[in-house]
Amino acid sequence: MADLILHNAMVLTMDSEYNFYEKGAVVIKGDRIVDVGESERITASYKAIEHINASGKLIMPGLINTHTHVPMTIFRGYADDLPLHEWLYDYIFPVESEFVTLENVKLGTKLAIAEMLRSGTTTFNDMYYYIDAIAEVVDRTGMRAVLSESVIDFPAPNSPTPEDGLRTAEKLINKWNQHPRITISVSAHAPYSCSAELIKSAKVLADKYSVPFNIHVAETRREFDAALEEFGFTPVGYLDNLGVLSDNVIAAHGVHLTPEDIQILAERGVAVAHNPECNMKLASGVAPIPELLAAGVNIGLGTDGVASNNDLDLFDEMNTAAILHKLNSNDPTVLDARTVVEIATIGGARALGMQNEIGSLEPGKKADMIILDLMQPHAHPLYNIYSLLVYSIKGADVESTIIDGKFVMRDRKLLFMDEDGLYEKIENVARQIREKSIVASDANLKKE
Amino acid sequence: MADLILHNAMVLTMDSEYNFYEKGAVVIKGDRIVDVGESERITASYKAIEHINASGKLIMPGLINTHTHVPMTIFRGYADDLPLHEWLYDYIFPVESEFVTLENVKLGTKLAIAEMLRSGTTTFNDMYYYIDAIAEVVDRTGMRAVLSESVIDFPAPNSPTPEDGLRTAEKLINKWNQHPRITISVSAHAPYSCSAELIKSAKVLADKYSVPFNIHVAETRREFDAALEEFGFTPVGYLDNLGVLSDNVIAAHGVHLTPEDIQILAERGVAVAHNPECNMKLASGVAPIPELLAAGVNIGLGTDGVASNNDLDLFDEMNTAAILHKLNSNDPTVLDARTVVEIATIGGARALGMQNEIGSLEPGKKADMIILDLMQPHAHPLYNIYSLLVYSIKGADVESTIIDGKFVMRDRKLLFMDEDGLYEKIENVARQIREKSIVASDANLKKE
Repeated sequence: MADLILHNAMVLTMDSEYNFYEKGAVVIKGDRIVDVGESERITASYKAIEHINASGKLIMPGLINTHTHVPMTIFRGYADDLPLHEWLYDYIFPVESEFVTLENVKLGTKLAIAEMLRSGTTTFNDMYYYIDAIAEVVDRTGMRAVLSESVIDFPAPNSPTPEDGLRTAEKLINKWNQHPRITISVSAHAPYSCSAELIKSAKVLADKYSVPFNIHVAETRREFDAALEEFGFTPVGYLDNLGVLSDNVIAAHGVHLTPEDIQILAERGVAVAHNPECNMKLASGVAPIPELLAAGVNIGLGTDGVASNNDLDLFDEMNTAAILHKLNSNDPTVLDARTVVEIATIGGARALGMQNEIGSLEPGKKADMIILDLMQPHAHPLYNIYSLLVYSIKGADVESTIIDGKFVMRDRKLLFMDEDGLYEKIENVARQIREKSIVASDANLKKE
Repeated sequence: MADLILHNAMVLTMDSEYNFYEKGAVVIKGDRIVDVGESERITASYKAIEHINASGKLIMPGLINTHTHVPMTIFRGYADDLPLHEWLYDYIFPVESEFVTLENVKLGTKLAIAEMLRSGTTTFNDMYYYIDAIAEVVDRTGMRAVLSESVIDFPAPNSPTPEDGLRTAEKLINKWNQHPRITISVSAHAPYSCSAELIKSAKVLADKYSVPFNIHVAETRREFDAALEEFGFTPVGYLDNLGVLSDNVIAAHGVHLTPEDIQILAERGVAVAHNPECNMKLASGVAPIPELLAAGVNIGLGTDGVASNNDLDLFDEMNTAAILHKLNSNDPTVLDARTVVEIATIGGARALGMQNEIGSLEPGKKADMIILDLMQPHAHPLYNIYSLLVYSIKGADVESTIIDGKFVMRDRKLLFMDEDGLYEKIENVARQIREKSIVASDANLKKE
């Protein structure tokens, strides 16, 4: 006896054969998918405790956000329309050093998870501080996450030294890594903000426990030029020279890459987390995604933190990725809709090394999926399911979300989170921040 | 006695002083705004038949879509990931010639209006065929529109000759132009698809009735190069040479413009309808919006038809415009959030010559506004209202829509349109189209 059968729905599997059932069904038992296929066959073959007729809906794998900093929701809209360096050093780092507290991290994470669940994300890969607190919120809310304590060459909000940060990381790996939905990984912030020794130590720790290793790489032209000047290497060349590039590495951004860099990333099996909206908003540039894909590099989609996006909506990000690379390549056939859906689902799973567990709807995989309500004007007509998802569907069309076999959102109600009072608490934090510091977007207006 | 007071809401006016009330109110009588201001003052000064406490909501001017082809919703997703010329000549024109019928135009318009009302648009400027039928749907649904019969140098679906199209246009101007929400204007498709004589005759007709004149201009590099070769002018230079550029002209796209072209547009008072998502998706290029703004050209935002977007959501379009020009200018301070909101509201009104009637919330103007539900995770915290609107808010956050003083959507229910059965009818049309012709996005996948 299975636990749940969802039938009579459109089912997009994102399996290796791109199976799409116009009238399909999914069978779930415990935390796993038992079967996926034609509704008629499934309903004749299985019995379950609960049967849901999902007619008029689309079931697909939950989206995977391969790069974000979820507690930064508290800074949403705090500093916009600024260059990255000024944004980071004059606004974000100072405000983080004062307001990234244990309580605010929990609050920001809660808001972020509400936003992600409501817009179709079922797994996120995070680099931040106080990740024990983030893990607690992930545990409670039913979300799936890969979490890493970001180490950096100056005192972090919860670590006086980077060595302390690494000790915390190791402790948390041991604490959490049996959890069915939580993976603690390791991060070094970036080649420009971490010493070579720190990057190497962090990578050693990641390898010791076979967990992902995250690092921001080649996000801006300034970083690229400074690496050439300071190290005599491109950022990728520098990391390769340190010996830290291998197949558990997720390079966030990868905007400024030479053809040799792309070759190195492909040969070492490094994945790239692509954040098109953040890269556009901060005028960082365009990551060479078509070239990376052609070289065989695994690509995942990310939003980055909301302070630079300003949301966690991967449906938006899919649309932007698809149209940005067409423009940038001067070729509207580039990054076709199916490729984009692939990047946002099974591609992201591959980037995180989790392709055997999540990213597609296949028997034996974890039951992570989203159910979209297609009874919306923008969801009609349907000629091609990938086009519809990338160019028309919105995060708000996600009606229900299942993670690890459990509904975590049903009919737009979050089941493991009380949103009452959450927005008020967030606005209180914002009020404190506003009282202490000038809001950059207001300052910009006044400059005029 | 007023008809309606909305109080206790955030109110963004987009008036010339950018007045924003954290606790504001709007007074409506008949089709007009009577007053806007602090909630306390308003509620003490006015009485109305209906008082609505809009606490937790944001009231702002309805968005204005300055370039679209609404009946093309029936082709949403029919031909994606293709170059513009192939898309237009091999897919769109053939399928239009067969399937753009009176019935399908009505159906597609209905779907489009449902989508626009649900995502915050209260006025749209359209170029298409069978506009008498479009006007009927606009009339019934409570929408506001500027509509034009597109003339072109080959038989249009409802006009055997372009001259016939112009006669239809004149007849419809006389039929509809006393309507409080409908303006019939005149369009010539593009310099490459209309003879010089046709463009001039169309402009004469627009001037005779003092209505807007729409034309696609300089959308692609191919068009730009062909104009240089064929006419010895840029597209803008060519039109200027024909003497048809003046302040009732709305140039759609304006992607490939020389500095001289920008000067001409500014001097003649021509407005540009900017369609960033369509231009990206078809790899047409990036319109020089910062330069056009600097030259004093009125800019409105548009989606273009959904066959090339693939939606009618101006909140998406605002976000894309803001981040695209940052990237393209290599300057993240370009097109700040407030400028983008301006373009989507009062800027669009100016582009259509309707700035005294719509585009901002001010006493005496038409009561066209949208009410957004901010009780959403992505709507918090609020540091800067323009940042929130451009970078975080979604079309789906629009809860109610008022046009000409009347609720046309209330609590997400459309009041003058029955959506029941609409999607089914649309899917039936799509089925007929699919049976007759190969769906381009499927053909693309098969090519691989």
